[in-house]
Amino acid sequence: MDNPDKAAQAATRAEREAFYARIGADNLAPLWEQLHNLVTPTPRSDCQPAHWSYQKVRPYLTEATGLITAEEAERRVLILENPGLRGKAAITTSLYAGLQAILPGEVARAHRHSQSALRLILEGDGAYTSVNGEKTIMRRGDFVTTPSWTWHDHGNDSDAPMIWLDGLDVQLVGMLDASFAQSSQADRQELLRPVGDSQMRYGNGLAPMDWQPPANKASPLFSYPYERTRASLHAMQSAGEADPCHGYKLRYIDPLTGGPPMPTMGAYAQLLPAGFDPLPYRCSSGTVFAVLEGRVLVELADRRFLAEPNDVFVIPSWAEHRLVPQEKSVLFSFSDRPVQEALGLWREQRGGASGSL
Amino acid sequence: MDNPDKAAQAATRAEREAFYARIGADNLAPLWEQLHNLVTPTPRSDCQPAHWSYQKVRPYLTEATGLITAEEAERRVLILENPGLRGKAAITTSLYAGLQAILPGEVARAHRHSQSALRLILEGDGAYTSVNGEKTIMRRGDFVTTPSWTWHDHGNDSDAPMIWLDGLDVQLVGMLDASFAQSSQADRQELLRPVGDSQMRYGNGLAPMDWQPPANKASPLFSYPYERTRASLHAMQSAGEADPCHGYKLRYIDPLTGGPPMPTMGAYAQLLPAGFDPLPYRCSSGTVFAVLEGRVLVELADRRFLAEPNDVFVIPSWAEHRLVPQEKSVLFSFSDRPVQEALGLWREQRGGASGSL
Amino acid sequence: MDNPDKAAQAATRAEREAFYARIGADNLAPLWEQLHNLVTPTPRSDCQPAHWSYQKVRPYLTEATGLITAEEAERRVLILENPGLRGKAAITTSLYAGLQAILPGEVARAHRHSQSALRLILEGDGAYTSVNGEKTIMRRGDFVTTPSWTWHDHGNDSDAPMIWLDGLDVQLVGMLDASFAQSSQADRQELLRPVGDSQMRYGNGLAPMDWQPPANKASPLFSYPYERTRASLHAMQSAGEADPCHGYKLRYIDPLTGGPPMPTMGAYAQLLPAGFDPLPYRCSSGTVFAVLEGRVLVELADRRFLAEPNDVFVIPSWAEHRLVPQEKSVLFSFSDRPVQEALGLWREQRGGASGSL
Amino acid sequence: MDNPDKAAQAATRAEREAFYARIGADNLAPLWEQLHNLVTPTPRSDCQPAHWSYQKVRPYLTEATGLITAEEAERRVLILENPGLRGKAAITTSLYAGLQAILPGEVARAHRHSQSALRLILEGDGAYTSVNGEKTIMRRGDFVTTPSWTWHDHGNDSDAPMIWLDGLDVQLVGMLDASFAQSSQADRQELLRPVGDSQMRYGNGLAPMDWQPPANKASPLFSYPYERTRASLHAMQSAGEADPCHGYKLRYIDPLTGGPPMPTMGAYAQLLPAGFDPLPYRCSSGTVFAVLEGRVLVELADRRFLAEPNDVFVIPSWAEHRLVPQEKSVLFSFSDRPVQEALGLWREQRGGASGSL
Repeated sequence: MDNPDKAAQAATRAEREAFYARIGADNLAPLWEQLHNLVTPTPRSDCQPAHWSYQKVRPYLTEATGLITAEEAERRVLILENPGLRGKAAITTSLYAGLQAILPGEVARAHRHSQSALRLILEGDGAYTSVNGEKTIMRRGDFVTTPSWTWHDHGNDSDAPMIWLDGLDVQLVGMLDASFAQSSQADRQELLRPVGDSQMRYGNGLAPMDWQPPANKASPLFSYPYERTRASLHAMQSAGEADPCHGYKLRYIDPLTGGPPMPTMGAYAQLLPAGFDPLPYRCSSGTVFAVLEGRVLVELADRRFLAEPNDVFVIPSWAEHRLVPQEKSVLFSFSDRPVQEALGLWREQRGGASGSL
Repeated sequence: MDNPDKAAQAATRAEREAFYARIGADNLAPLWEQLHNLVTPTPRSDCQPAHWSYQKVRPYLTEATGLITAEEAERRVLILENPGLRGKAAITTSLYAGLQAILPGEVARAHRHSQSALRLILEGDGAYTSVNGEKTIMRRGDFVTTPSWTWHDHGNDSDAPMIWLDGLDVQLVGMLDASFAQSSQADRQELLRPVGDSQMRYGNGLAPMDWQPPANKASPLFSYPYERTRASLHAMQSAGEADPCHGYKLRYIDPLTGGPPMPTMGAYAQLLPAGFDPLPYRCSSGTVFAVLEGRVLVELADRRFLAEPNDVFVIPSWAEHRLVPQEKSVLFSFSDRPVQEALGLWREQRGGASGSL
Repeated sequence: MDNPDKAAQAATRAEREAFYARIGADNLAPLWEQLHNLVTPTPRSDCQPAHWSYQKVRPYLTEATGLITAEEAERRVLILENPGLRGKAAITTSLYAGLQAILPGEVARAHRHSQSALRLILEGDGAYTSVNGEKTIMRRGDFVTTPSWTWHDHGNDSDAPMIWLDGLDVQLVGMLDASFAQSSQADRQELLRPVGDSQMRYGNGLAPMDWQPPANKASPLFSYPYERTRASLHAMQSAGEADPCHGYKLRYIDPLTGGPPMPTMGAYAQLLPAGFDPLPYRCSSGTVFAVLEGRVLVELADRRFLAEPNDVFVIPSWAEHRLVPQEKSVLFSFSDRPVQEALGLWREQRGGASGSL
Repeated sequence: MDNPDKAAQAATRAEREAFYARIGADNLAPLWEQLHNLVTPTPRSDCQPAHWSYQKVRPYLTEATGLITAEEAERRVLILENPGLRGKAAITTSLYAGLQAILPGEVARAHRHSQSALRLILEGDGAYTSVNGEKTIMRRGDFVTTPSWTWHDHGNDSDAPMIWLDGLDVQLVGMLDASFAQSSQADRQELLRPVGDSQMRYGNGLAPMDWQPPANKASPLFSYPYERTRASLHAMQSAGEADPCHGYKLRYIDPLTGGPPMPTMGAYAQLLPAGFDPLPYRCSSGTVFAVLEGRVLVELADRRFLAEPNDVFVIPSWAEHRLVPQEKSVLFSFSDRPVQEALGLWREQRGGASGSL
């Protein structure tokens, strides 16, 4: 190892390439050729902002019901694929989203998996999700969870199609190489508790004496009815000043920890009052939004689009943006923020490039 | 949406493909064609078991010092690329590993990044790593950390080359799209505290009155000297029975929380006594091992190899294996287990396929 | 220090007493004369079981309103003094309880103190408690908190007297020598938020984005309406089996932590179904009960009494007892259990002397 | 309840007293006569500052060894009784302290109790404390714990007397009515692990894989050798600036949580450099100090005393004081601060009456 500098200076590109080829055969590669792609000054993935108009997607869902049965599909879902991440079933680098449809009389049979799932109900009234022996009736705007490794099935006992937005941590779990799954023989799991039982046990500022933290670290509440969420948003509006970036914004919580409803995904609801003129904002968690009420103009550095009821859109990590309501609007959103916070990675910048990091 | 079953039965493969093409143009894709690849019954990545013989890699490191200066390289490292994940700079699906060499008189200049890094010293005595204004002298077997967003630089004031194993959460941070980095103008950061200061403040069962949990959630200890670790392993051996799978195994901790030294990577040391005949084991965290003492026969389902001092090997997620010492041996290892535990995803199986999940 | 045993044998009682007198002058005392009183095999305080009949106490409250104005009293309260602890204003060794009355048009002016207080509303409808700028309207059965160091005042805008049970950690705070208090100049604090605001912000499975853990470690919910609690108890009854000792029992929680509503006092509600025949029970936290519905026969080792609506009774630490409903009954209770749990001291024994410790 | 104000005005002192007597018979008392004694503006107990000179107390210990055998005494200890709290075996309102002596060849037989105990070794070298099957050799300055409900015994295999300061949470546990205790038949408990085992398992920045949080919430480290503590204090001195009130001060920690060594008592070590001129200080936890090195002038509002090696002194809650070293000095101290912090009660004031609360 003598005189390294001299030797190094003499090394030509060709010599280096020859070296790389030789070590490559032994599963080695030079870091110095890749360091700046692996460790970037700011997030730099292929994830792009994107917008799915419900008006456009809704007919495809109808068409899909004619192409495949719920039974055959197991889950009849159209994946919302990020245009920058095609082929990866990803809406952000870490998360999956899709629109699921279930027709009257159909069931999506029971399975469970290490991936956590959330639902935001967009259309219909009266279908159910059953989680670990408890049935939850779903209505528009409700936020429903099926935490990691919980048996869950869906069914539609109502007389109209039911459509909801699915969010899962598929890419995160895939990257961790920690996917486990099981299918049930039964279409519907056995019901062990009355409808609404978990809401009664955990949703009223109380907890049973024998509650213990579950292994999956998820909230014992499986459903967060929109009726309650909406009331909370309006109470905030009548009580105080809006956040300059977010308007009136709440996070869904696990009432036994104050943490997120599931450890891998945070979910949020926000009310943007009419005339609200937000400051620019960005954070390190790519975020999926759905419009529950109103219309919102989404402004990014080099594009803008108008999001209307049931539309879904995604803001990539660290992309500066403004959500400008065209009337009083309510947005639902979800992201991997709890993961980044747990790992000490999450960052935000408020107020634009002049804002403090 | 009438008569879906009838329509569905009539749908041919061609009709479906045509539909997929149409919706693909609108950034949609059918989940039912991919569900079973996204949500697998058990972990099923391309990650493979692999083994790097130090005897083989060491000459390449010497050669590399002749091909590129430390200054030009910023970090002169050979990446240990998993043969199943070539081109991704990954040793497991979530982690990066490399072997770094620094010659007498060289420095690797200061930078910081959101990626957390750990080092296991393999060769040399007396080079340093400086972290946030404090210099740590490195000796063989020492475990040294540079947590997320801490300024760090390395230098070799000794008269022999220094080589260590690097482990970083590059793939995890990349997947979360949360990479931030800065370079310093200075080769060496300003030293603010004496050598060994953090060991004195936090390594003796004490903490300063004004300690506060840091934003990066990392241990305030930057160095875990092998001398101490080795003493602990031998004390365990003289005190009690070995774990049937792991022998005598300890985890490195943050003494202010009892958690891992950094939130994204757990690190472990284990002593396998001579004649130890372990039960099979697997867990959902792909794990990187390095041999500090002795020789270990690594047995997997369809391959086996002998790991000798300073050799590195990797066991993928959920790959059943046995680590059979050929003499008294000490192993260092690291993995993403703290991440999976924080997210409620980690699993293990002890005792082989007949073991309980 | 030679031949201690010989010397010790020779020491007479009188010699010892003379020694004790001499060292006493220097603030020293022999432990060996007191050890077995200080460190007892099981709890052995002077606290006794006791029962306050509302029918008997209610006329005293009326009489008190004629003897002292709310203004003069600051708080017009009759202390429920444990008969074994007279003169100490204590209902258990660690807690205080009292019955407070406020007439139409009266106010109890604002003050704050390090002692935490809880209220269980026994009679009346429409008086208020204001806590930190937010007014809460109180109704029978509601559980209302005024956590440590929060400004609070009460007033009765209704047209009937309002009576509630107060519980405070007065003895605990006194023993810790940590009492701080301030009086406000104003009868009524300024209201900063609408009535019910905290219920809307924290009581619906949501939390504002900017919530931070408060220094007093208390729940942001100040009121737990009986309507909700009652619904939860009945849902539990319709869903599952009763606990053999407690029937259907819930604890009031801080929805941001899952912990108790205040760090020093736990509060509980339980439904004892008609015909329920409980197993004996004891725990190390002396507990204060109030009857909200029904009638309960309280059985202790050497006494029994019948508790009727609004009656209050206390069970000392480690006193075995059974709560036998004479009809469907609902009990409220509070104790220092969260303190003992936080300190690793709490114990229980279920099923009587034959039960495992 | 008509016209209360008029009636109240008419009520004479005599009428009130008559009322109090009547309700007293039913275990009731008027709060308004006591409120300002129960809820005081600042801590106002009978606890006084006090100082025990080792030079004065040491001969009494010798004398005590002639008056009672270790066997007869179970623990041969002189209680340090606060002059304001005589007869209560208390050094502060919540804590007990004593000086224990054990002669060569003596043993203090095994018992356990819910009270937690700490020891600071003042004199001797080589006696032992055994805790839960592990023996710890004690040397001057060592801080040793026997957490709640751990079997412990002491013995002196050396050839000189051994004397240490005991601190226990006797008053706290008594107030909570949560005292449990058991005696062992055996003088010495069976030893299950080698001497120093817990130091090796938990004291080196490591933890065994199978560690689980214990029910008593105590540190798995039973001994904190003064050699290590002293090195840490001197390293702090050489590294940085002194705290204006405390000099260089460290807290003993549980390395698995970062919390106190036992949940009911915090323990601290501080170095006061020669010439240090501290700012006044007070906090809500009455604190017991022992001098390990040097001499310290203790200044309080209306008294001052000089504390020399092995002297013990106590500062009551909220008593402003200055600890002025007459030469480089090292102090050990302990208090109930972790209890007050866990309950949201702890306060401090730095810099005197002009300091901010």
